Amino acid sequence: MTKTKLAFFGLGNMGSPMALNLIKAGFELHVFDPITKNLKEAADAGAKVHQDPQSCASGQNLVFTMLPSGPVVSELLTSIRTVVAKGTLFVDSSTISPMDAKAIANSLHESGHRFIDAPVSGGTGGAKAGTLTFMVGGQSSDLEQVRTMLLTMGKNVFFAGPVGSGQVAKVCNNMLLAIHMIGTAEALNLGRALGSDPKVLSEIMMKSSGRNWSLEVYNPIPGTMDGVPSSRDFEGGFMVDLMSKDLGLAREAAAASKVASPMGAQAAELYRLLQKAGLGKKDFSVISRFLEPG
Amino acid sequence: MTKTKLAFFGLGNMGSPMALNLIKAGFELHVFDPITKNLKEAADAGAKVHQDPQSCASGQNLVFTMLPSGPVVSELLTSIRTVVAKGTLFVDSSTISPMDAKAIANSLHESGHRFIDAPVSGGTGGAKAGTLTFMVGGQSSDLEQVRTMLLTMGKNVFFAGPVGSGQVAKVCNNMLLAIHMIGTAEALNLGRALGSDPKVLSEIMMKSSGRNWSLEVYNPIPGTMDGVPSSRDFEGGFMVDLMSKDLGLAREAAAASKVASPMGAQAAELYRLLQKAGLGKKDFSVISRFLEPG
Amino acid sequence: MTKTKLAFFGLGNMGSPMALNLIKAGFELHVFDPITKNLKEAADAGAKVHQDPQSCASGQNLVFTMLPSGPVVSELLTSIRTVVAKGTLFVDSSTISPMDAKAIANSLHESGHRFIDAPVSGGTGGAKAGTLTFMVGGQSSDLEQVRTMLLTMGKNVFFAGPVGSGQVAKVCNNMLLAIHMIGTAEALNLGRALGSDPKVLSEIMMKSSGRNWSLEVYNPIPGTMDGVPSSRDFEGGFMVDLMSKDLGLAREAAAASKVASPMGAQAAELYRLLQKAGLGKKDFSVISRFLEPG
Amino acid sequence: MTKTKLAFFGLGNMGSPMALNLIKAGFELHVFDPITKNLKEAADAGAKVHQDPQSCASGQNLVFTMLPSGPVVSELLTSIRTVVAKGTLFVDSSTISPMDAKAIANSLHESGHRFIDAPVSGGTGGAKAGTLTFMVGGQSSDLEQVRTMLLTMGKNVFFAGPVGSGQVAKVCNNMLLAIHMIGTAEALNLGRALGSDPKVLSEIMMKSSGRNWSLEVYNPIPGTMDGVPSSRDFEGGFMVDLMSKDLGLAREAAAASKVASPMGAQAAELYRLLQKAGLGKKDFSVISRFLEPG
Repeated sequence: MTKTKLAFFGLGNMGSPMALNLIKAGFELHVFDPITKNLKEAADAGAKVHQDPQSCASGQNLVFTMLPSGPVVSELLTSIRTVVAKGTLFVDSSTISPMDAKAIANSLHESGHRFIDAPVSGGTGGAKAGTLTFMVGGQSSDLEQVRTMLLTMGKNVFFAGPVGSGQVAKVCNNMLLAIHMIGTAEALNLGRALGSDPKVLSEIMMKSSGRNWSLEVYNPIPGTMDGVPSSRDFEGGFMVDLMSKDLGLAREAAAASKVASPMGAQAAELYRLLQKAGLGKKDFSVISRFLEPG
Repeated sequence: MTKTKLAFFGLGNMGSPMALNLIKAGFELHVFDPITKNLKEAADAGAKVHQDPQSCASGQNLVFTMLPSGPVVSELLTSIRTVVAKGTLFVDSSTISPMDAKAIANSLHESGHRFIDAPVSGGTGGAKAGTLTFMVGGQSSDLEQVRTMLLTMGKNVFFAGPVGSGQVAKVCNNMLLAIHMIGTAEALNLGRALGSDPKVLSEIMMKSSGRNWSLEVYNPIPGTMDGVPSSRDFEGGFMVDLMSKDLGLAREAAAASKVASPMGAQAAELYRLLQKAGLGKKDFSVISRFLEPG
Repeated sequence: MTKTKLAFFGLGNMGSPMALNLIKAGFELHVFDPITKNLKEAADAGAKVHQDPQSCASGQNLVFTMLPSGPVVSELLTSIRTVVAKGTLFVDSSTISPMDAKAIANSLHESGHRFIDAPVSGGTGGAKAGTLTFMVGGQSSDLEQVRTMLLTMGKNVFFAGPVGSGQVAKVCNNMLLAIHMIGTAEALNLGRALGSDPKVLSEIMMKSSGRNWSLEVYNPIPGTMDGVPSSRDFEGGFMVDLMSKDLGLAREAAAASKVASPMGAQAAELYRLLQKAGLGKKDFSVISRFLEPG
Repeated sequence: MTKTKLAFFGLGNMGSPMALNLIKAGFELHVFDPITKNLKEAADAGAKVHQDPQSCASGQNLVFTMLPSGPVVSELLTSIRTVVAKGTLFVDSSTISPMDAKAIANSLHESGHRFIDAPVSGGTGGAKAGTLTFMVGGQSSDLEQVRTMLLTMGKNVFFAGPVGSGQVAKVCNNMLLAIHMIGTAEALNLGRALGSDPKVLSEIMMKSSGRNWSLEVYNPIPGTMDGVPSSRDFEGGFMVDLMSKDLGLAREAAAASKVASPMGAQAAELYRLLQKAGLGKKDFSVISRFLEPG
């Protein structure tokens, strides 16, 4: 592979540290962002900044996006595809709906371009540390072309299947995460109310069929585990607002595919209620406090 | 410990193989059961059978119960405590409500007896193989007296705290299990509907924050995992009827302690619906089919 | 009917004004209550006060109870039935579970007494104004004996069927009330968020298939209707704590009869959450604010 | 008003009888439909049939649509607006999302046309009998222009507010209807299971705070009311499939406006489950049987 010249769009909380890791790894990074401050920081780090998307993309052999929503991705990619060569690969790490990802891919295929969806998990901490997990949908050969590059930003890359499958994996995973987090909070709250020590109860359930990620590495009851958001008043971690956004994508996907998902629906409503209660900026494990404030 | 002479009540699907394991391990087992056939099988295996509870309990230095409900346990223990010596230890492995366990313990303490609650998980398979897990509430010294005995029937013994805590651990664990099983089914059904391979999706989520016991060892989607109920038309395993019973105990405990538990409530309603749909005898992972029969 | 000499137990928020209406109507009222202040007020109004339940009941030809829970009713009636004549009629207006009402009735029948359950709706306002609604279960001839008496405290008396049916009617009605109240709040909140005037929307739905009691006489959106709790910061009316108690009875009844009731379960969880959020003393229409505080 | 020449699009189950009523009332109806059979029936009734939308719309002074979804309405109206005069009024009686209605209106306003949304309730029976209810959003002067025309197809016309408000009223009303229908079914099922007569219980709740449209005119328990779907094996009436579609629009609207709506979410999931259980073509009151088949 000749040196990759990369157009990178989206220098927000996630995109900015990802861009830095690419620069550190030696990629020639061309960036555009509507926010001047973001551009300046990237310039300081060694990126080549551009004043408009077309100039940024022009002549690059790979386009990378990390943007807030499907329509934003769609609009940007539509506006720049005429300035990049046929066959250029677009890699989108935004979290958007699987339906949007498929539609964008179809549109790019029609104009002779390639597209993979590659959403991440791991949060801003993972973005800074370069330990993100990528879930990738598309042609596996397209993934292989950029695997090394993705591994400069993350430590796991999963191939999930045809285009859109990366988004499917992310939305399904996060819906399941929300469900077992709430379930874990309820089980531990119930145990506490009945007089059990949540630490002891957690240890038992971890060795039993109740075992799950929330219990093992993210215990939502304050005082049961060190170094997790519940031990620091639910600060840091994965915000309720972001979980609520992901559950919204899950509802949209369930509606579009006519899937019954009563627990997912319940989880979406509960995280909406947390937002209404002013807890949107807290870590999503704050559900334990919302359900049992006493 | 001198040789334990043990009164054992409850020779049902679970109790019967547990009794056999005790006999094999050399315990002198005195049994009573209202069903003649059960008694005969136990006699064939070497148990000393009795025609009434009082005769069975009289003179034994330990009483073990494996019965269908709290009121049945309460009634039996009340009827026999006058024939056993003060200080005798009662071990109850029935699955009953924490409130019932505490009430029974209080009553036995008043008459000078000892009591621990020691419900099990592992099902009839675990009972036969002697691989049950015991969750024990009460005085830890009482548990130590019988730990060796319990280990002839199981391979794990967890001390959960004061009396009732064994039942708390079981009811909380099984509620959490139901929640992540349904959540796992929904996530995989959603993935399938969106075109993903449930096997690939399961592998990704197992390495991500969606990870949980249902996904790891009990995948509910037919064809994704060998040797689990979903691979044999949801036969065997842990019956919907039993999960529904356990969720009923969870609701009762949540109501008694005024705990909010919206996912637990949802799970209880869904397993009730499975029963209404005629799926009560199927394994509880059949929720995946109920939600997405297409 | 000769002059009825009536033992009346339970001089709380509801019972006290009911007793006054009976006294005003000329009944000879014998009262007992553990709280001295309550007794004094009743004495001032003309009741004959007693220092213990047995003295209060002794020699009366009818026993009336308005107590906080099934176990309290059961304990009291058990303690006094030996001092009243065989055949005496017990009328219980407490709100208790249908199962408790049936058990109490069975017990009284065994000792040769009669029993009807006669819970009320209408709240403390209705109790003072003498406009309560009675829902009665038991022998219709027993109801006829006391119908005139009930109508001194209320303006509607419904015969609901065999013993326990009064409690069934109350618990079913209030569960349904909770469900359509929440539904009405959600529909109007949704309309508001989409830019519609809740007053206009209410008028349209009242003339359409969305019509229900909450919409017609108890609109939960502030500013849409005069004289209802939502127009006075949700003060007065029917407290969240009481609705939560009634929904608890509904869950208990559903569990006992193995009925699927997903909306009832959801309603019970939501009113529990309102209690957790500190809204227990507000009117139950405050759900509109809990769901959409913005 | 000079004689209205009307382009009418959408001769399906609802649109066809509505068109007939317009023709009977003397309107000159120009129709187009992709299904030849539909066109032929309309021709037989006196409509002027066209082979393409543009020909149908050309020269008419009013455009009326009754189509299956928002995108279909949008596509059609976009394709014909160039052939009708500036200022022409478009009346859309399709059931679509409020967001789609607003977007279509904005687009038509930009091209100098007028638009009102006017969805209906009343079903195919109401369409045939000319007794539909119209809920109208837009300029009230635009509504006045067509009020007489709408009243040839219906008997009630409600003005709901700015454009989109007709759709808001419909989606909110139907969500509320679903909620109290399920609630009514649960309450009556619970009463039955506890031994009460559903007819007696219905009568009591109708006179109490449980009162609602489902209870009063559409009782879901077979044998309680004549002439309703529950009395004829849930045939006829308002299909589960259609209620499920409307609840989908409600979820979409709630998601778009970030409204918490836990009962609406639960209702949507339950009607989805009814579809999965093969009950999509039954009347929506069949929920009573789904929840309590025993």
